[in-house]
Amino acid sequence: MRLQDLAAFGGQPLFSELKHTAQMNLPEWSKLKNTLRGIVERSYFTNHGPLVNQLEQEFAKALGVRHAICVSNGTSALMIMCRALGMRGEVIVPAFTFPATVQALTWAGVTPVLCDVHSQTQTPTARQVEACITRRTTGVLLTHVWGQSAYSDDIQKLADAYALNLIFDACQAIGCTHLGHQLGNFGKAEAFSFHATKIVNATEGGCITTNDDHFARCFRAARSFHETPDDPPGILRMNGKMSEAQAAFALLTLEEFEQNLTANHDRYTAYCRELSALPGIVVGVYSDSEVNNYQYVNVYIEAEVCGLTRDELFDLLAAENIICRRHFSPGMHRIPPYDSMPQQIGRTFPVTDRLCERIMQLPNGQQVSIEDVTRICGLLSEIIALAPEIRAYHQSHQCLG
Amino acid sequence: MRLQDLAAFGGQPLFSELKHTAQMNLPEWSKLKNTLRGIVERSYFTNHGPLVNQLEQEFAKALGVRHAICVSNGTSALMIMCRALGMRGEVIVPAFTFPATVQALTWAGVTPVLCDVHSQTQTPTARQVEACITRRTTGVLLTHVWGQSAYSDDIQKLADAYALNLIFDACQAIGCTHLGHQLGNFGKAEAFSFHATKIVNATEGGCITTNDDHFARCFRAARSFHETPDDPPGILRMNGKMSEAQAAFALLTLEEFEQNLTANHDRYTAYCRELSALPGIVVGVYSDSEVNNYQYVNVYIEAEVCGLTRDELFDLLAAENIICRRHFSPGMHRIPPYDSMPQQIGRTFPVTDRLCERIMQLPNGQQVSIEDVTRICGLLSEIIALAPEIRAYHQSHQCLG
Repeated sequence: MRLQDLAAFGGQPLFSELKHTAQMNLPEWSKLKNTLRGIVERSYFTNHGPLVNQLEQEFAKALGVRHAICVSNGTSALMIMCRALGMRGEVIVPAFTFPATVQALTWAGVTPVLCDVHSQTQTPTARQVEACITRRTTGVLLTHVWGQSAYSDDIQKLADAYALNLIFDACQAIGCTHLGHQLGNFGKAEAFSFHATKIVNATEGGCITTNDDHFARCFRAARSFHETPDDPPGILRMNGKMSEAQAAFALLTLEEFEQNLTANHDRYTAYCRELSALPGIVVGVYSDSEVNNYQYVNVYIEAEVCGLTRDELFDLLAAENIICRRHFSPGMHRIPPYDSMPQQIGRTFPVTDRLCERIMQLPNGQQVSIEDVTRICGLLSEIIALAPEIRAYHQSHQCLG
Repeated sequence: MRLQDLAAFGGQPLFSELKHTAQMNLPEWSKLKNTLRGIVERSYFTNHGPLVNQLEQEFAKALGVRHAICVSNGTSALMIMCRALGMRGEVIVPAFTFPATVQALTWAGVTPVLCDVHSQTQTPTARQVEACITRRTTGVLLTHVWGQSAYSDDIQKLADAYALNLIFDACQAIGCTHLGHQLGNFGKAEAFSFHATKIVNATEGGCITTNDDHFARCFRAARSFHETPDDPPGILRMNGKMSEAQAAFALLTLEEFEQNLTANHDRYTAYCRELSALPGIVVGVYSDSEVNNYQYVNVYIEAEVCGLTRDELFDLLAAENIICRRHFSPGMHRIPPYDSMPQQIGRTFPVTDRLCERIMQLPNGQQVSIEDVTRICGLLSEIIALAPEIRAYHQSHQCLG
């Protein structure tokens, strides 16, 4: 391959269709059609209908958790959890997370205090969290990054010692475990996402899980406008309802969870194999002793080894219709309004910064075949071989410009 | 008819299926199936897809407004509007409105200051609003109750004089007019609902309309997590996205808007005709000089004339599977936490209280035929004739109890 064969330099893109990182799991049309037709026949479109109830039962059963409360999306789940648990003042949250984790806190009327993470686990240690506690702290919201547990006994002990609400953003963690126990069972409550990018696809959708009966009643109350006689008092309500059509998509993709997980794992394994010999492109490893859903194929770009930065690689691949993601980049401490809040001023987040600079997700999901993976990895290998030439071109181009 | 023929007294319910107030407009299954199949074929489920774009264009065109920005539901629309317009401190809002109007303000971090309404228009006058203004007031949020305009030149002048953000809850007002101009074009922005109960049915869904290009960019930015280069700075973001499946339902019911409006009008006219001779049950009248969508058939129960209270009638009808609504009851000044806020303490809302005590919505929408209307009105007539007997029974029952 020559430089001019790359799409960024005038060649044909490797793929005629976009290759994404999103799961885009889609049930068979005939099944989906029948389920949607049922909604139409019942003329029951929303307000906690039969499909939403069924999804709540099946999701709770799959996770072995007492309560699953379906809501409009993962962000609503987090917003409702924070408000209904009465969180006020400051809540500690990692700087290395999806923007919605932190935005939900702002919507819930609390001040996010960002926390750097550990370079190995990519989640804050109990010590890092403890350093952020002030007299105003009422809670800790941690993210199960790439489905890897943010829970630890140390974190729970810390929360207990300071009487803090410990909750989790489990939006990436459907079906994942901590020491063999399903995530969704930890802290006071956990928030899941059924966005189309996730392994269970409601198009849009989310869910709160908890083992506490009282909290479950609070969350159920908060997702609807109207008070019912069972509701605990003093709950701020909203429209957080999931529609029946959303539940239809989610139920059918939940049914196919195991096969979609296996397909993810096959693609992940293929990436590992194909990229193992490539210098400077390190595939993120998942623990063999836990279940993961393999939604995310993370690679860490060592620019000093492979000769190209993560962003240079990202752009070269995008030209080939290979649409990678740079989650979570930049860190939340660099995003307004969080960058200029007094809680963050003067503090540094070196591990988050280093992760944000290097990490990239490669295409995965139902629309990516093993053959696609082979082609993507083959192209990456060619690009790395051309790295000195690309770099020289960029430098001369910059000089000319 | 004898007392024991009423379902509440052991008789057979008049209807074997529930008769609701919700519109429940449903497109033909073959059309809906094709549209949903298109989503599956494109594998484009959410994130401002082609159907959402089409809905935004068609809704904006229908209303003659520059921008329509689709969101997850009407509450999100209000929440986004308040935050993106930078509303802080206090916002004045009617006590006679749907709970979500006021709840959205709380989520947006502002303090709602409730305002009583005028008995004729059921919306606050400029004078009533002015009496609520303090140094902390930054906005006024008024509701187009039953699709009747809350806008007036006086209100606009007041907002201008005090430099207040004037916005509208137009969730009940799709296709309705003010002096011949479509609602959706007034104030800084307006919020619509496409809930299944509304004439345009996205199952769940909402929309913000505005004629201001800058505000439109702010609202578009606020409904998504990620910043794009076009976005104004400093916007608090959330997940307010409408999915493609929601847009599919909405587009097809928007297409059938005129015929659904006509059917609503026919049912409304039938109710007016059938109930005209019935003492103490007064049907709410819509202005002939404005367009209304006739979603709501309001009746006002004069207990002293018909011999039964609104709540007694409501329960008697519910037993017959005639599921009326008591919107908006109770007034927001009686609902926690608003009842105990310093802004409301010591103030009275006599017009709201009087409306809340008397008003009731009768069944309407696609699942209610003209024959159903005739049967409902016939039953109402029988019930009123039995009123003395029902009252006597209740009194003896209470004495026995």
